[in-house]
Amino acid sequence: MASAIRIIGIDPGLRRTGWAVIETLGNGLHFVAAGTVRSDDKAALAARLCQLHDGLSDILQAHRPHEAAVEATFVNKDAAATLKLGQARGIAMLVPARAGLSVAEYAPNAVKKAVIGVGHGDKKQIHMMVRVLMPKARFDTDDAADAIAIAICHAHHRQSAAARLAMEAAT
Amino acid sequence: MASAIRIIGIDPGLRRTGWAVIETLGNGLHFVAAGTVRSDDKAALAARLCQLHDGLSDILQAHRPHEAAVEATFVNKDAAATLKLGQARGIAMLVPARAGLSVAEYAPNAVKKAVIGVGHGDKKQIHMMVRVLMPKARFDTDDAADAIAIAICHAHHRQSAAARLAMEAAT
Repeated sequence: MASAIRIIGIDPGLRRTGWAVIETLGNGLHFVAAGTVRSDDKAALAARLCQLHDGLSDILQAHRPHEAAVEATFVNKDAAATLKLGQARGIAMLVPARAGLSVAEYAPNAVKKAVIGVGHGDKKQIHMMVRVLMPKARFDTDDAADAIAIAICHAHHRQSAAARLAMEAAT
Repeated sequence: MASAIRIIGIDPGLRRTGWAVIETLGNGLHFVAAGTVRSDDKAALAARLCQLHDGLSDILQAHRPHEAAVEATFVNKDAAATLKLGQARGIAMLVPARAGLSVAEYAPNAVKKAVIGVGHGDKKQIHMMVRVLMPKARFDTDDAADAIAIAICHAHHRQSAAARLAMEAAT
């Protein structure tokens, strides 16, 4: 008998980090919560990274997910922006890893493929499909909606990985 | 009467993060310790970030610095490498900030100017001047030597900032 697995999806960003917790039980996916951790853009960088750290830590405490998934973006021509994103992403991966969660990474086109069926598409299409796949989902920002898509992507991949392992064990 | 201030300089990198602790008392600078925190490049990214986190936390515990300084590099044409550096740098800033230290950032040319007198120069020149300025310094890698230079840079800047404040108070 399978038990419910809680997944946290994280869309990292220095200014806004989107997060979403969903639950997967068999083939069903259920929305738990989603939101946005913000950092004060007038504060020093180190203080902003602490704000992201503490915000994500609070969410893990409140929702106790079992596994984490983080988007792996680096499509950016501006090195300073990529460095900023990297700093936020370091925190977004560290916090769940230190809490003992596995942390999977998905490229943006894998996330798009999981929710809209193809590896390309704009934010609007992703949000529309998030609403279709998970009608009870509530999100305050684009980043939180993206985090839901990342969590859905991980739910699909972990299930197919489990199916593959089961098939291998049976043959 | 001024008391000794311990500074940790950090040269962040995903594979190797150099660190150095120096002490400043009046105009004197003294070497305390330096070394390199490594992450296992066969491990998953989240695990590697935990290794950097735990390594830097141990060093803060062992040497109890008062202030931190981190190099602000992003001169890199490869977005994937910049993202990696950003992730390591996020951890390098988070750990001292969470421990209550102020975290200053210095651009590479500020570090060069502090140790070799001009804003340009190669690694060899930096290492030579580190040996001249701090003859007792011992370092195991280039990254640790760079971390000493970063700590020296911060020692100079914090002193001139203090002198400026003292002058402003006196006039």
